Amino acid sequence: MRSRVSSMAAGSSMQWLRSVKGVILDMCGVLYDSGEGGGQAIHGSAEAVRRLIGSGLTVRFCTNETQNTRERFVQKLCVMGFDISVSHVFSPAPALIHILRERHLRPHLLVHDDLIPEFDSVDVSSPNCVVIGDAADNFSYQNLNEAFRVLIGLEKPLLFSLGQGSCLLCRRYYKETDGLKLDVGVFMKALEYACDVQAQVVGKPSAEFFQTVLSDMKLQPHEVVMIGDDLLNDIGGAQRCGMKGLQVRTGKYRPSDEQHPSVRADAYVDDLAAAVNAILTDH
Amino acid sequence: MRSRVSSMAAGSSMQWLRSVKGVILDMCGVLYDSGEGGGQAIHGSAEAVRRLIGSGLTVRFCTNETQNTRERFVQKLCVMGFDISVSHVFSPAPALIHILRERHLRPHLLVHDDLIPEFDSVDVSSPNCVVIGDAADNFSYQNLNEAFRVLIGLEKPLLFSLGQGSCLLCRRYYKETDGLKLDVGVFMKALEYACDVQAQVVGKPSAEFFQTVLSDMKLQPHEVVMIGDDLLNDIGGAQRCGMKGLQVRTGKYRPSDEQHPSVRADAYVDDLAAAVNAILTDH
Repeated sequence: MRSRVSSMAAGSSMQWLRSVKGVILDMCGVLYDSGEGGGQAIHGSAEAVRRLIGSGLTVRFCTNETQNTRERFVQKLCVMGFDISVSHVFSPAPALIHILRERHLRPHLLVHDDLIPEFDSVDVSSPNCVVIGDAADNFSYQNLNEAFRVLIGLEKPLLFSLGQGSCLLCRRYYKETDGLKLDVGVFMKALEYACDVQAQVVGKPSAEFFQTVLSDMKLQPHEVVMIGDDLLNDIGGAQRCGMKGLQVRTGKYRPSDEQHPSVRADAYVDDLAAAVNAILTDH
Repeated sequence: MRSRVSSMAAGSSMQWLRSVKGVILDMCGVLYDSGEGGGQAIHGSAEAVRRLIGSGLTVRFCTNETQNTRERFVQKLCVMGFDISVSHVFSPAPALIHILRERHLRPHLLVHDDLIPEFDSVDVSSPNCVVIGDAADNFSYQNLNEAFRVLIGLEKPLLFSLGQGSCLLCRRYYKETDGLKLDVGVFMKALEYACDVQAQVVGKPSAEFFQTVLSDMKLQPHEVVMIGDDLLNDIGGAQRCGMKGLQVRTGKYRPSDEQHPSVRADAYVDDLAAAVNAILTDH
């Protein structure tokens, strides 16, 4: 029988969980599985989130979701049984809007139709940068050409990517109920290649993005654990910021993750319910 | 006044043209400019081709065109005033079909609708490789996902690209009368990144492709000059095979090409008419 919680090496303990004062939760693949109709909750996750928030630990949610505004995204999760405050959800679009304002940038947007309202307050006339998100069906040849023309027409091409999808073999796409789909990272690479630029990634695994969440939590990195299903974006990204990383065996987890040559989670856990059990047991 | 023919360095001669026994001509940007309605002949090019063929030199045509079958492509050129034999035109699709047959491969095709008839004799059932060409509007999100799913579903993903577009800043796209458009190379990069594979490029600048043309000409590389507008694909590719390379100042030529850090044409020539003048004067 597989143990529900296994720490990295035989004999190593999970004592570090005792010093944890805050938890950052990835959402897709941890709270719910995506798919047509918005997806469905992973068994036990809604209850686990409730217990975690009720425990007094500081809890935040961190997602690379860019197919919805934050408000609509939280509404969808509410329908699945999650009780989450919009202000506790960190996603790339609001972080980018902050950057655009600070740097007086006017974006050309190649994003999902449902994300457009997030940019309602942003000046998009005479664009001086290009923003791509997970545009899905909006990744048409025509729209890619249009983004490309804006980018190549700028004196200094400036490309922002809302997340970069995932970034190793079998992690560059996501799975929906109607099949595998290419994610934003692939189109980011295409435009990077076309214009010889390097995109600025806003969202996981960027350190700035995690740092914004930590600031809001008013905690130091070593006091926080990130729980995610994506070894590189969630676990690797969090560890580079000094946080601990727990990988759940749901969502895009694969058994081979536990033998990854360069990124190792501090613990592997069957699912969010098991993770929360482990955390609360040690508190 | 700019001289119509300038060899690389002051003082160097173009004596090497005297030993030339064959000429390979790039087509788009040398014979004609592309655009809506099939494009138009570059002034003096049709007459230059006639003179060249009439001179007794061995002449072949070499194109990365993948939006038409060879037959239809030659018909379009005929309308523009060119008298060219289909059997003297080398394009990626027939070269690829040869490879597919030799290796018993069944392709999934992501190519331009007008290229499909070229593959009429090819078995496309249960695909065990993916072929991309300059698919233009067929580069939809849906079609890219479909090609991706086939590729990632193969035990050993195998991707062929009909040409790779061009490959330096400002060379990754082409210009049509309705604006800049992303070329096959950008989508090749996207699929390469998505599946962690390296595409096999069939067409210029691949050495195998030029070698096929040389074999047909029954000439040694040092006996042949390649005339093209694309410094990297035409000139660089030909030079790597031991041929000389003349760059014409038409098509996608840019003045900065003459200061390129790594690739230098053996001569720069205003247009095809001037190139043929220079070649025939020395013969």
